[in-house]
Amino acid sequence: MTPTITAFARSPDRGRGLGRDMRVRWALEEVGQPYNVRLLSFSEMKEPPHLALHPFGQIPTYEEGGLALFESGAIVLHLAERHPGLLLPVDANARARAITWMFSAVNTVEPPIFERSLFTILERDKPWYQERLPALDEGVRNRLRQLSTYLGDREWLDGQFSAGDLMMVSVLLRAKQSPLLDEFPNLAAYLSRGEARPAYQRAFAAQLAVFTASTAS
Amino acid sequence: MTPTITAFARSPDRGRGLGRDMRVRWALEEVGQPYNVRLLSFSEMKEPPHLALHPFGQIPTYEEGGLALFESGAIVLHLAERHPGLLLPVDANARARAITWMFSAVNTVEPPIFERSLFTILERDKPWYQERLPALDEGVRNRLRQLSTYLGDREWLDGQFSAGDLMMVSVLLRAKQSPLLDEFPNLAAYLSRGEARPAYQRAFAAQLAVFTASTAS
Repeated sequence: MTPTITAFARSPDRGRGLGRDMRVRWALEEVGQPYNVRLLSFSEMKEPPHLALHPFGQIPTYEEGGLALFESGAIVLHLAERHPGLLLPVDANARARAITWMFSAVNTVEPPIFERSLFTILERDKPWYQERLPALDEGVRNRLRQLSTYLGDREWLDGQFSAGDLMMVSVLLRAKQSPLLDEFPNLAAYLSRGEARPAYQRAFAAQLAVFTASTAS
Repeated sequence: MTPTITAFARSPDRGRGLGRDMRVRWALEEVGQPYNVRLLSFSEMKEPPHLALHPFGQIPTYEEGGLALFESGAIVLHLAERHPGLLLPVDANARARAITWMFSAVNTVEPPIFERSLFTILERDKPWYQERLPALDEGVRNRLRQLSTYLGDREWLDGQFSAGDLMMVSVLLRAKQSPLLDEFPNLAAYLSRGEARPAYQRAFAAQLAVFTASTAS
């Protein structure tokens, strides 16, 4: 059965791949699973049919037969478990460590990056903008520094490419919009390695095509 | 083999259970797994021996034989997988939904709660405090409202108590420090049901005992 995911009908980042459907598209491409996409307007996301799938009115969701999931991390983990050895190592300890990196990406690395990103969008004209920004920068820098120190000259976070890398690269993609990521050349190179994967390229092109079509209409 | 977790030697919340070791202690109690605790000072958390276990210099960590994990969500998931049927349903779809709620707790519900909490601690004396607070309140309220609408009169998020509830209750515990949670009586009651579980009570007492001992010395 071909699963169906949801995505923005009109990408708020203009197709730069920051929508969280990108993570799920990428995982689907990595495991070679074809999928359908149902596009939603911002108003449709807050209406009962979608809220029945996603209580927080966001994208992506994932439907496959009788199963309906939300949260990009959970969907990526589900896909990884369905295809052993591709996005999660078969070895039990290595598998647990890859899952640790998935949680680390969404719960430790992403929050300061996302907070800074929203701040620069929503509060740029506020009188406190210049005074508050350095502390947010430092919060992001602190996490990137720790990640950079850990990564060193590793190719991926822990041995072979895993769902942990998929999630971490996706989180770093947002940091690339700031000048902070380039302060850590090994992280910038790690991000580039993720972006260079054929599965990433296919997923990126697919979400960009949605944006391109939406602006042509 | 008895696993060892790490926790704060001196709890910054004065034993109120907000430390993320609480989530792991609670999961260990739910599955009936005895554990050891290694207490760390704030300076020890930033030194090489601990950074080798946890690249971001935080607690908790989890060590068991050759396996070393960090991130409370990943550790709770690991424990749940080790003890099928207790913190994760055996049915595959129900299991995937419980994991969805785990990610939802840490990636969708926790960030606005944590951001507001830190703001009230770190920026209370800033000139922008009163003007910025309402937007942060509204961010928290928005998530709580959506969660409350979903929960309705359910006892737990999806059937039996799961690791998803364990994580969500832990995240709501921090919101209890604000006046916002009580605006949603069904969420306050849900939190109380979590806190009333014997395993929660044992975990809470254990982390409180560390704080009590640290202040008696």
